[in-house]
Amino acid sequence: MSKIKSLIRKSPESDQSEPIAANSDNKNIDNVSVDNVSKDNTSLNTPIEQTRWNGWGNVSINKKVSPHGAKLIKSHIGKTNKLKSVSLQQVLKTVPKSRLPTALTDLDTVSIDQEVRLRHARGQSFPDWIAMHGGDFEVFPDGVAFPESTDDVEQLLKLAQEHDLIVIPFGGGTSVVGHINPQKGSRPVLTVAMSKMDQLIDLDNESQIATFGAGTQGPAVEAQLDEHGYRLGHYPQSWELSTLGGWIAARSSGQQSLGYGRIEQMFAGGTLVTPQGVLNIADIPASSAGPDLREMMMGTEGRAGIFTTVKMRVQSQPEEELFKVAFLPNWAAGKAVLKQAVQSNVRLSMLRLSNAVETDAHLHLGTTPSQFLAISTYLKARGLSSDKVMLTYGVSGDKAHNKLALTQFKKLLKQHGSVTGKLTDIMGNIWAHGRFKFPYLRGTLWEKGIMVDTFETATNWINIDEQMAQMQEAVKNSLADEGEEVMAFTHISHVYKQGASLYTTYFFRAAKDHAATLKRWQKIKHAASVSLANGTATISHQHGVGRDHAPYLGAEKGALGLQVTSDMIKSLDPEQRMNPGVLLEE
Amino acid sequence: MSKIKSLIRKSPESDQSEPIAANSDNKNIDNVSVDNVSKDNTSLNTPIEQTRWNGWGNVSINKKVSPHGAKLIKSHIGKTNKLKSVSLQQVLKTVPKSRLPTALTDLDTVSIDQEVRLRHARGQSFPDWIAMHGGDFEVFPDGVAFPESTDDVEQLLKLAQEHDLIVIPFGGGTSVVGHINPQKGSRPVLTVAMSKMDQLIDLDNESQIATFGAGTQGPAVEAQLDEHGYRLGHYPQSWELSTLGGWIAARSSGQQSLGYGRIEQMFAGGTLVTPQGVLNIADIPASSAGPDLREMMMGTEGRAGIFTTVKMRVQSQPEEELFKVAFLPNWAAGKAVLKQAVQSNVRLSMLRLSNAVETDAHLHLGTTPSQFLAISTYLKARGLSSDKVMLTYGVSGDKAHNKLALTQFKKLLKQHGSVTGKLTDIMGNIWAHGRFKFPYLRGTLWEKGIMVDTFETATNWINIDEQMAQMQEAVKNSLADEGEEVMAFTHISHVYKQGASLYTTYFFRAAKDHAATLKRWQKIKHAASVSLANGTATISHQHGVGRDHAPYLGAEKGALGLQVTSDMIKSLDPEQRMNPGVLLEE
Repeated sequence: MSKIKSLIRKSPESDQSEPIAANSDNKNIDNVSVDNVSKDNTSLNTPIEQTRWNGWGNVSINKKVSPHGAKLIKSHIGKTNKLKSVSLQQVLKTVPKSRLPTALTDLDTVSIDQEVRLRHARGQSFPDWIAMHGGDFEVFPDGVAFPESTDDVEQLLKLAQEHDLIVIPFGGGTSVVGHINPQKGSRPVLTVAMSKMDQLIDLDNESQIATFGAGTQGPAVEAQLDEHGYRLGHYPQSWELSTLGGWIAARSSGQQSLGYGRIEQMFAGGTLVTPQGVLNIADIPASSAGPDLREMMMGTEGRAGIFTTVKMRVQSQPEEELFKVAFLPNWAAGKAVLKQAVQSNVRLSMLRLSNAVETDAHLHLGTTPSQFLAISTYLKARGLSSDKVMLTYGVSGDKAHNKLALTQFKKLLKQHGSVTGKLTDIMGNIWAHGRFKFPYLRGTLWEKGIMVDTFETATNWINIDEQMAQMQEAVKNSLADEGEEVMAFTHISHVYKQGASLYTTYFFRAAKDHAATLKRWQKIKHAASVSLANGTATISHQHGVGRDHAPYLGAEKGALGLQVTSDMIKSLDPEQRMNPGVLLEE
Repeated sequence: MSKIKSLIRKSPESDQSEPIAANSDNKNIDNVSVDNVSKDNTSLNTPIEQTRWNGWGNVSINKKVSPHGAKLIKSHIGKTNKLKSVSLQQVLKTVPKSRLPTALTDLDTVSIDQEVRLRHARGQSFPDWIAMHGGDFEVFPDGVAFPESTDDVEQLLKLAQEHDLIVIPFGGGTSVVGHINPQKGSRPVLTVAMSKMDQLIDLDNESQIATFGAGTQGPAVEAQLDEHGYRLGHYPQSWELSTLGGWIAARSSGQQSLGYGRIEQMFAGGTLVTPQGVLNIADIPASSAGPDLREMMMGTEGRAGIFTTVKMRVQSQPEEELFKVAFLPNWAAGKAVLKQAVQSNVRLSMLRLSNAVETDAHLHLGTTPSQFLAISTYLKARGLSSDKVMLTYGVSGDKAHNKLALTQFKKLLKQHGSVTGKLTDIMGNIWAHGRFKFPYLRGTLWEKGIMVDTFETATNWINIDEQMAQMQEAVKNSLADEGEEVMAFTHISHVYKQGASLYTTYFFRAAKDHAATLKRWQKIKHAASVSLANGTATISHQHGVGRDHAPYLGAEKGALGLQVTSDMIKSLDPEQRMNPGVLLEE
């Protein structure tokens, strides 16, 4: 039926709930140069056939929602009805004939198989979920290429120019803002899936630089590094499936950004294949020689070219890594702890603060009724009210630094009236254990007719409270004309001396059908985006721009900022062949 | 005779050897907004009339060279003869009539005074020194503008467009690579000196963001921040005179970059006035929304526009700051200490390692004969040979972190056979006290006929030794055809997990006249630059590109990298009016 099984190499022993084991044939990798990478037939990435075609993650993984958690949400949004879902077979029938010329379809690296095209047509945005469950995909790529080298990608872009194709780079397919969606148009669309470039190619132990294929997914990155005692330390929520190239192209940030930095601090250089040729970005530690090419190309979201090999700054595995939870009396206290910790250089690896509503929701969603009762009683007995906020923190490094960081941080916590203890320490471990499972909740809730989405920003400390209020108010009232209430709560999960990220999760009821539900989402999304488009907050701190945020980018960059970004990109893609409409609307 | 005294506001109590006192009228600055900045008549910058017109720094400051230091240099390069120096009056006679139209000369902010134009014609590169001492300036700006606001700069750029002028932004005039030199051509040249925009405009205590006029010099930055308990922490060697705008436009790095970061980590956003309009770069803590405008504009070296107000990330004054010295048996041991310290996250604020030749030279140049004898005897008695290297390190922060950092670092030092003690601690204090005085040595040596210049790079740890050898060999032999030996030595002063900077100082003899001496320098500079142009080292880690490095930039960026940089700049300056020839040769 499908060529997919031959195209996507199988992992013999992958278990997506843990980092998969690295290929054991690669022991002497330290001496392998970039030009001389040996190919093998074992995929380190998760084979796409093992992932859900119409939802998040590995088909074998589910995450339950507690009945009292679902009840809490419904107490806000009301009784829900489940939307219908189409089958894969139904959608396969809607995939049209490929428009790719034979020059491409003749290539071994290119597939026009219907299921392959279907599985590379949509990401993980809310409109994508509506399309995947409602069955109206609108557009499919005309073919999917699976290059294995920089040369392969160069060849593909040359052919794309000769045959006037649109090219869409595809990493893990985890975009939540429409990065990889083909659009209607006369030019055939070639999606370039980077999944076969998933290997550690070179490791410079001296400089702690690891060269990878840009299509390597999070678990495969860390498993291959771990073999040599190293860690990248980039853990976005999408880590299970998202790739190095995707992180770089969309400027992602991971859970331990406080300790390990954002992807910008990790990306040392590499190769970007553009329609104008190969741009080699030298991996020099620091330079005053003009604008930084790394920073110019990070965030181009496939508009300038395709990252093929990337050089990453890695470091030794930490001697110790701990995650803990504390509760504070209210948001102001929690925010003060975060701000003071980061501004006084307390060396934590992560800080996350849920506001009161999110704290309450987490305590409901992640517990059994008896656990919920135990925790609630415990916190109430220690004087915490419904204003209480949950703070999750971590250390990752040598024991001496961790000890100092924990000592300094606990002093801060105490000053602001924290409640900590064995129970909260256990909660830290639970968080750490389940931290990549949260995206699975979306499917569980979807099945209950509870629609969930998120949006996020970053702003200076001075704006944090007002920005959070605006974000929540905007979405809460966005369906008032339909008499619907949207439930919303927020957390900070990335802190900087200057400010912090804000991440709002919202829930609303499915409408009578997919189209009407999408319309609800569009209203909420617009209200949410407008609440960010104020010149002091970013339209996205970690998800990127894609198509969904492009209309609001001007508030952040200004007209001239958009112009110079556009001209920079056109310099590399004068025919606007690469992922047009993403990042910049034009 | 000269309008310079009325144009450049005097500081009533400035002493350039220490940070100057901030203006005491500005106590309530926390509540002053950018739009509402109150002007006063007191300059916080060093008035240009107090600086040498033909050399470095304040006219009242000199730095002596020890006789045995000069003797050491001459033992390599031979007996020297002093070059003649012209007088200011002689050069003033060569300043031609201004070609500026009356639309500009009528402005209060613009001067066509000959001394003003002379003092803004040259920087601190070796060719600049030859011009300033030989008297052949070649070209002077047709006028110098002293804007006081973003509006003033906007007006100047509009007039520049109407009258087809070349515009050169001028910060502290400290460029060592020809950033601010007007060139021959038919278009009149307007230099825009930012010296009057030297005030702290706004301070956001919550977000620790300080907004400054971009023309604020190092001491005025720190003095104004210190009043409020803050520090920027950027200390390039040129700190006494160089400015925020210059640091940002040329991507500088300071002595304590390990603790405080490079200027890239400090610059949060601000206003860049371009020929296409005002580019406001939002000061958002972090963003995944496309390429980073901050990073796109940093390093544009006046080609894209003029920074007028800049928002800087500041932090609390450190509880404690210490600088210490240690000696290690050889370069390999010293390098191992640096690399291990930075890769294992030891929280020092600076690390500097002189190679054996530099160590020997420093011990000669900075001591009296009896001091030299005492130190030499001390180190010899502790088993160190002529291979010994000097390592300077510092901590800056809270006492608990400093203590941990020093404990961890001293363990590393010991593992690699270090010699430390009271004497070396004293040497650390001496270094700290005199650290901004080194540039004054150049004038002292010049007077002895000893020509000195430097060049610098950064590369990965794996390349450090070979790169250093190549740099030194290249310059040592570069005058072999004239039978001249060039003396060269090197240090590392900026370390990264991935690699380090290399900074080479070289000495050579003045030739029979200025022109012949310049030719010698050109040969050395070419050899030095070629030694860096290898794709793994940068043409400059901290000095920028200017005119002197532009021919070699392609090795670092590649042809496509140059193209995209050029197109990005042309987007903002399509008529190539801003500082043409700097950064990119075209």
